[in-house]
Amino acid sequence: MPRNAETASYKFNHTMIRIKDPKVSLPFYQDVIGMELLAEKKFETFTLYFLAFNHDGKDLTPEEKNKQRFSREGVLELTHNHGTESDASFQGYSSGNSDPGRGFGHIAITVGNIEEACARFERLGVPFKKRLTDGTMKNIAFILDPDGYWIEVVPGSLEI
Amino acid sequence: MPRNAETASYKFNHTMIRIKDPKVSLPFYQDVIGMELLAEKKFETFTLYFLAFNHDGKDLTPEEKNKQRFSREGVLELTHNHGTESDASFQGYSSGNSDPGRGFGHIAITVGNIEEACARFERLGVPFKKRLTDGTMKNIAFILDPDGYWIEVVPGSLEI
Repeated sequence: MPRNAETASYKFNHTMIRIKDPKVSLPFYQDVIGMELLAEKKFETFTLYFLAFNHDGKDLTPEEKNKQRFSREGVLELTHNHGTESDASFQGYSSGNSDPGRGFGHIAITVGNIEEACARFERLGVPFKKRLTDGTMKNIAFILDPDGYWIEVVPGSLEI
Repeated sequence: MPRNAETASYKFNHTMIRIKDPKVSLPFYQDVIGMELLAEKKFETFTLYFLAFNHDGKDLTPEEKNKQRFSREGVLELTHNHGTESDASFQGYSSGNSDPGRGFGHIAITVGNIEEACARFERLGVPFKKRLTDGTMKNIAFILDPDGYWIEVVPGSLEI
């Protein structure tokens, strides 16, 4: 199907998932995964965090980062509903990969060297859903984010 | 947090959601949303469909499309578990936005002109979760995909 004039401006801007505790998830997505925080928007009952990979490594001003939120692809939005982080009765969020709640599957990051990437995740204590050596597909892995969402780790040059 | 050498190659490549029926979802994501099918990978019990916006409008060869699957950002992966489309007992997938199953929120597309985009979705009979005129945020809308997943429609120049 060729792209048409009516949708020519459209971009797949972001994916939103809910998180229990930004004090845990932000260091994970920034330090472990390597994304940059583009903006933090606090509302009365929730806060939104927008993250993305900074591909050219250039330092961006807060204004440039804020603008990128809706002008590029590959943005991850984390929604924190205030209070979940300290609510003993909070059951946690569904990863989308088991019933009830099955639907959403995962987000995926491509990496230049998957052996190095997975060795680093092991070293940093990141839990794995599937190591490179598990199952039949030896060239992809799945790690778990702090809320249990699956993150596929895949070589940028994968052929399946 | 500055980007570091270890994660410099990383990209937020794709987001995966499960779909009930590709005969319904593919026309939706191609014709209504305007994405291009990059690749279709059939396995014994499931088929994967990879889609993305073709931003420069250039015709791509099947090889170029296939390569883009893991070399760019903004890819949507649809997983079809064979049989759901004709299984009368299939309950459908969770959108992630209600209990049980709350977690995943939505994907978002940015558009050049949100009034035109929403008028077009209306004309095409796309169900809305939130019209521009609903609620307090008059500059964003939410439509529903064929499985009930929420798709935020947002101006590429939004300021919140």
